[in-house]
Amino acid sequence: MEIKIQKKMLEANESDAEKNRKNFKDKNIFVLNVMSSPGSGKTETLCKTLKMVMPKIRTGVIVGDICTHNDADRLEASGAKVVQINTDKFGGDCHLSANMIDKAAKEFDLDNLDLLIVENIGNLVCPAEFDIGENARVVLLSVTEGEDKPLKYPLMFQVADAAILNKIDLLPYLDFNANEAVDNMRKVHPQMPVFQLSAKTEEGFEPWIEWLFGCVKK
Amino acid sequence: MEIKIQKKMLEANESDAEKNRKNFKDKNIFVLNVMSSPGSGKTETLCKTLKMVMPKIRTGVIVGDICTHNDADRLEASGAKVVQINTDKFGGDCHLSANMIDKAAKEFDLDNLDLLIVENIGNLVCPAEFDIGENARVVLLSVTEGEDKPLKYPLMFQVADAAILNKIDLLPYLDFNANEAVDNMRKVHPQMPVFQLSAKTEEGFEPWIEWLFGCVKK
Repeated sequence: MEIKIQKKMLEANESDAEKNRKNFKDKNIFVLNVMSSPGSGKTETLCKTLKMVMPKIRTGVIVGDICTHNDADRLEASGAKVVQINTDKFGGDCHLSANMIDKAAKEFDLDNLDLLIVENIGNLVCPAEFDIGENARVVLLSVTEGEDKPLKYPLMFQVADAAILNKIDLLPYLDFNANEAVDNMRKVHPQMPVFQLSAKTEEGFEPWIEWLFGCVKK
Repeated sequence: MEIKIQKKMLEANESDAEKNRKNFKDKNIFVLNVMSSPGSGKTETLCKTLKMVMPKIRTGVIVGDICTHNDADRLEASGAKVVQINTDKFGGDCHLSANMIDKAAKEFDLDNLDLLIVENIGNLVCPAEFDIGENARVVLLSVTEGEDKPLKYPLMFQVADAAILNKIDLLPYLDFNANEAVDNMRKVHPQMPVFQLSAKTEEGFEPWIEWLFGCVKK
């Protein structure tokens, strides 16, 4: 019974997601869903990304957290319009769902937006199961989290269209084999583009920003 | 309706958890539920912990992952009996539930065990909602994850009986304020014991091991 209910919930979400996708397509907006564990550096990566792509790409951000407005405050410094979703009002949900995105999207001037970035709740499991109507998904892994995470949390890396290996500035201080981590990502998702960068030092951002420009231009 | 179903699931789990708690109490076994984000260092911390407490404390470990046997292999090197639960057989569940612990516990010789450690799935959200029949909960946060995580994921820190701030060997290379992180933990859970340590260098283990001995002796 539990599995049936979960299937129904996922089906309802899928239908909401398709509506979102159609709405965003009508407005010619590319939607990017950014996911990772807590503390992998989603917000810092997006702060630097916004600085590099705006105002060339008119970007809005929806950011999901169970509690606090911290991430929205940091992202707003870029000048982008940012809408914070706090899921503690929804029982502390562990992921964003398509209906939350629909509601948050109403706060943007969609006629003047090229890119909508959604920073999902920090969780390497559940958000992978919930389509929010995005056009692409990016998963972040930081070099402090261990090389085996793609094998242990394969769904997230399977549904992602690209991966970012973040915090490479810390590599000299860790026993972390970046090649092994990338190999593991490609074991579960062959040919996935992987961008090795540091949101702190901005090293390695060029190919990532190029990829993002390519997405929005399409 | 969704909320009602979730409530029913949690109630069923709560009843299974109470059965587990009674079973373990009858055998005089202390059960510790260890939780954190992926990559915070649960396995490494437990490897070092086992080395320090065994054979004085007869310890068994149940380790949960969606996929792979990696963590069990690492923990088995300590000589402890380790049972791996892979939730991909259960639809890739994002947390361990009480009935999974009941099944796994049957693989141990419970008459010869003082401490059963459960390493939960790497997830700072969902495992906090599922009682597995434990006597105490420990949450790990690593210094690479940011000071604000206790405020953003408060339930996990509220339900924990103690916290470990791990990877303090990396502090010289990070803009991380350990005092601020501890303050944030205590904002959501006043007086919670917090052990600052490095599973890599074994710095700071003594108070943690002492706390653990105190739990088992009770």
